[in-house]
Amino acid sequence: METKFFVLNEERNVNLTAYLQPVGGEFRSILQRPAVLILPGGGYHFCSDREADPVAFPYLKAGYHAFILRYSLGDQAVWPNPLRDYEQAMSMIREHSEEWHIEPQRIAVIGFSAGGHLAACAATMSKNRPNAAILGYPVITGETVHDYLPSAPDAAKAVDSKTCPCFVFATRTDNLVPVENSLHFLTALEKHDIAFESHIYSNGPHGLSTGDESLDATGSCCRYSAWVADSISWLNDVLGGFSDQGLTDPRFGAAINGNRDKTLNLDCTIQYLLANPEACALLSFLSQTQDGDTPFPSAAKKVITLRECLSFAGIGEEELQAIETRLKAIKNS
Amino acid sequence: METKFFVLNEERNVNLTAYLQPVGGEFRSILQRPAVLILPGGGYHFCSDREADPVAFPYLKAGYHAFILRYSLGDQAVWPNPLRDYEQAMSMIREHSEEWHIEPQRIAVIGFSAGGHLAACAATMSKNRPNAAILGYPVITGETVHDYLPSAPDAAKAVDSKTCPCFVFATRTDNLVPVENSLHFLTALEKHDIAFESHIYSNGPHGLSTGDESLDATGSCCRYSAWVADSISWLNDVLGGFSDQGLTDPRFGAAINGNRDKTLNLDCTIQYLLANPEACALLSFLSQTQDGDTPFPSAAKKVITLRECLSFAGIGEEELQAIETRLKAIKNS
Amino acid sequence: METKFFVLNEERNVNLTAYLQPVGGEFRSILQRPAVLILPGGGYHFCSDREADPVAFPYLKAGYHAFILRYSLGDQAVWPNPLRDYEQAMSMIREHSEEWHIEPQRIAVIGFSAGGHLAACAATMSKNRPNAAILGYPVITGETVHDYLPSAPDAAKAVDSKTCPCFVFATRTDNLVPVENSLHFLTALEKHDIAFESHIYSNGPHGLSTGDESLDATGSCCRYSAWVADSISWLNDVLGGFSDQGLTDPRFGAAINGNRDKTLNLDCTIQYLLANPEACALLSFLSQTQDGDTPFPSAAKKVITLRECLSFAGIGEEELQAIETRLKAIKNS
Amino acid sequence: METKFFVLNEERNVNLTAYLQPVGGEFRSILQRPAVLILPGGGYHFCSDREADPVAFPYLKAGYHAFILRYSLGDQAVWPNPLRDYEQAMSMIREHSEEWHIEPQRIAVIGFSAGGHLAACAATMSKNRPNAAILGYPVITGETVHDYLPSAPDAAKAVDSKTCPCFVFATRTDNLVPVENSLHFLTALEKHDIAFESHIYSNGPHGLSTGDESLDATGSCCRYSAWVADSISWLNDVLGGFSDQGLTDPRFGAAINGNRDKTLNLDCTIQYLLANPEACALLSFLSQTQDGDTPFPSAAKKVITLRECLSFAGIGEEELQAIETRLKAIKNS
Repeated sequence: METKFFVLNEERNVNLTAYLQPVGGEFRSILQRPAVLILPGGGYHFCSDREADPVAFPYLKAGYHAFILRYSLGDQAVWPNPLRDYEQAMSMIREHSEEWHIEPQRIAVIGFSAGGHLAACAATMSKNRPNAAILGYPVITGETVHDYLPSAPDAAKAVDSKTCPCFVFATRTDNLVPVENSLHFLTALEKHDIAFESHIYSNGPHGLSTGDESLDATGSCCRYSAWVADSISWLNDVLGGFSDQGLTDPRFGAAINGNRDKTLNLDCTIQYLLANPEACALLSFLSQTQDGDTPFPSAAKKVITLRECLSFAGIGEEELQAIETRLKAIKNS
Repeated sequence: METKFFVLNEERNVNLTAYLQPVGGEFRSILQRPAVLILPGGGYHFCSDREADPVAFPYLKAGYHAFILRYSLGDQAVWPNPLRDYEQAMSMIREHSEEWHIEPQRIAVIGFSAGGHLAACAATMSKNRPNAAILGYPVITGETVHDYLPSAPDAAKAVDSKTCPCFVFATRTDNLVPVENSLHFLTALEKHDIAFESHIYSNGPHGLSTGDESLDATGSCCRYSAWVADSISWLNDVLGGFSDQGLTDPRFGAAINGNRDKTLNLDCTIQYLLANPEACALLSFLSQTQDGDTPFPSAAKKVITLRECLSFAGIGEEELQAIETRLKAIKNS
Repeated sequence: METKFFVLNEERNVNLTAYLQPVGGEFRSILQRPAVLILPGGGYHFCSDREADPVAFPYLKAGYHAFILRYSLGDQAVWPNPLRDYEQAMSMIREHSEEWHIEPQRIAVIGFSAGGHLAACAATMSKNRPNAAILGYPVITGETVHDYLPSAPDAAKAVDSKTCPCFVFATRTDNLVPVENSLHFLTALEKHDIAFESHIYSNGPHGLSTGDESLDATGSCCRYSAWVADSISWLNDVLGGFSDQGLTDPRFGAAINGNRDKTLNLDCTIQYLLANPEACALLSFLSQTQDGDTPFPSAAKKVITLRECLSFAGIGEEELQAIETRLKAIKNS
Repeated sequence: METKFFVLNEERNVNLTAYLQPVGGEFRSILQRPAVLILPGGGYHFCSDREADPVAFPYLKAGYHAFILRYSLGDQAVWPNPLRDYEQAMSMIREHSEEWHIEPQRIAVIGFSAGGHLAACAATMSKNRPNAAILGYPVITGETVHDYLPSAPDAAKAVDSKTCPCFVFATRTDNLVPVENSLHFLTALEKHDIAFESHIYSNGPHGLSTGDESLDATGSCCRYSAWVADSISWLNDVLGGFSDQGLTDPRFGAAINGNRDKTLNLDCTIQYLLANPEACALLSFLSQTQDGDTPFPSAAKKVITLRECLSFAGIGEEELQAIETRLKAIKNS
């Protein structure tokens, strides 16, 4: 493993530590690796060492390169300085992706507490978005962020259609960053149809990091530390994993349906298709069925895709193709 | 294991299956057992066998007695019939607790989908509340429940201060019961300071039950089936577990703080205490500190307890006791 | 779930409890299930309830039917009575396989302590062999079995080429059945090239069963209870698992190589092939290579197959086929 | 984390990489850390990078310092050069324990394949023994080691009473180092009453290292990678773990009984005590009981301690103390 250290901004004391792993050779078909960019917490007043190296280790074990960004703090943290620091770091990583053997579209950001706020902002409002975001007991809402960095925005309100898949974890008994922060963010993700996974553990103080005993996990429930392995498993699902043939495709798409694709298609939800006059005419037979003896309650229309509905109804592959062809002729607006 | 079968309501075809385990003898110090009451799903139109026995097995393995309630369905399900069925079952179980070797205050209800709605109603509005509730991809909101049982209420709106601790799990890609149902319920629990744990998995269709391969888990992420062991671990935390001395005390209290105790105390939050004139006078020194150079941001006041605050400030045990004595003289209103 | 109870031998008080799960219907493509036959321990003096139902539950959860055999004990246990009891039970199960929806070649036996001895005898010397055997802290050696049932044989000495794959677990600190029993059995399995998996935990008293807290696991290391899930995962590997298409093929063959197949083939080990004059002549080029600059040390010859060796050497698929054709013309003696 | 690199022997190209973690400060009560010394495999011909950094990461995450020794190879590996390299490394680590914040009696050695042979030799015949040893698919027997390094000894034959607790894992289908190597070592440990834990997985090729996907785990059973977390859990048991008060005591003693203590005591086995004339006279009442209607079969005498036996018999604490006092007056020879 090679360790590199870069000063990104001398005046603001911003720096990036890189742990770069070898490729090829004994690592056979692994010629590129995905990467994580870690943003430690500390209320925008310090960057906690508890949320730096100890977080890098499990992702290194899983085959990722790891970067740790120590961003603008205290007086230097006036917004958007920390977000600019993130963008500078992410640009640097993507620009060096060939040299450092990084797959540039498989880079996840991981942030804790205030670093979780910064990671959420990276996922929702940065110019150089990450491909996935892991948020640990994040500061999210305007009310909470105001106590740490009054100039910083509410991250839940910034969720948009380009927000990357998010993995959010917290403890319900967090006494510094109330769990409602995480709930607000999840609710915003759900409203924008952004892929997410979430684990809220019943008990545990703020700042547990990986939950390893050596980081003092007193007072936390024993399930807490599972977030680490779960987040790696989830990254494999959304970014793709490793195999003896190199990197594999993601197991699941980020989109829950086809509603945001360039044209309409079978994977759009029924509700979405029926709101489009052209598609509605094309699917007139369906809306009839839906009013009649459909097995799907109307609430389900919101989330069920046309493909699911027609498959349940026993429509064959050939006819599905024919419908898809006609749908794909309709631009998605 | 002894299997019993009770018809609770012949007309409405309501029945209760009981799997009762032996106590004492080779089971040594186990003279009483906790129990689970399982409410299978099925849109209030059927009770799924996939969510009955296969759910009972892991809790039986963990040492619990298991009950399965098949409640009123279809035309018979007009509200509040299913809730009455639950209450009848829970009354019967508690009344037989001595005969069946059940610890009557360690009974959890477990419901899935529509059964999750019923379990949520049991937790929030029944006369005979369970001690914990496990809700799997539950129907919660008025909008969704309306599609299955128009007469049934929104369970999130019913959360009250007596609601038991809840464990909520779901998949984000559920295409029959949108994940917003779970998010609404969690948000309501949080607002009422009810203890909870929650796991929302990124991918999986509706109705996965335990996620065992034999129940066809096609399309789900590999993390899904962890909810089973996690829920048992959580039950041990909130209800207590087993030891060579018999049942143990709960590891964590249901309450996040002392705000709902009979008198004020050190475990009340600062915000709560300051809202009480008597306590506010008593703690005048504290509000001063809080306005000054307190290490706690104002948002934290909402969740930080006085004990935590004073301990961080280095106040000794003796002085803490003195303050507690004076606080406990103030009735909680 | 249907519970059945059969008296197999009234005089010797032998009986079989069956927990049979439904197939088809809501269980979709599951039209047959694998099964486990549980043999509780108790020194051939009793059958422990701790090692009966609590063991059935996890396999039931995993989709298996479960049977519990209470075999001949005490004065009635004179050998081979217990083995005859097993054979009677297994015959009954296989004969009813159609009626009970059992896949008759996917039946595992699970035994503990003295029941582990009986399970090991079932695996090695019965007329109606199981398809897999799980042995928990088993009595194996003549020295130990002599203390419990002087008429019973040493199970390690009975291992033969038809012995089924075995999963063996124990604790090193077992103070009733010394761990050397398990080591003897593993050594015998290895010598006969029988597939096995083994977990010996550092600490734990005798008779821990599943290791659940409700069975009093005082004094055991926390890793112990993993044997349950591991054994189910292993059964899926050696017997096959479940999918949305019904039962799946085993993931791994029981044989480590082709040495016991009807004819010679590429999956025979080099050592085995070179001991056959015909094959030796055919492979003369190989033995030369082996004496020369082969990358494989001579110890490896014992376990490396010809296919592996030639693949490493870069021999193409076509040439491999040609060699296999000629090898398959040679009968295995 | 600080990375250091030391050339231990320039001529033989022996070097030591150190990954040292900070103590105190944000790491609170952690003022010293345990350490692991990693010995990669490679048939004494190379040191595999697959078994170096990727192995260090999980122990770093768990709070350990990590060292990687690249020892004498090829022509330089003539025995005992590699063992001398180990001893030089271990001496250096223990000598710097204060400077590097290492608890000098909590250092485990971890070796793979040929490195597993070296680790086994460190555990059994070195002058500067480790406190625990983790052996991955180790070369052990004279027959196998001969193929890699003819001058090197059989490690199983070297097991002695001072051998440290060992954790041994392997796969049964290893086609380069036959699993009998591990079985031989376990048998030797058992004969010498040395504490151990062992996991032999059913399927997996040689050289799987941590079993992470990025290291190409094709062909291994899914249970394989559990050895990593299990070994850390085991280290916590035998060396002690972490808490908010610093390092904790070991959970389990290395000795299975008191047979190797300086004087006799209640934790000696009955068999051992009866072989001592003085103790035999003292315990004459016991040997009588043992011949009579004792609940313990004679095989158990070998492993049951006097304390267990008397406790089962209902002897009170006071009387136990009296017997212990008299036993402790007898020197253990």
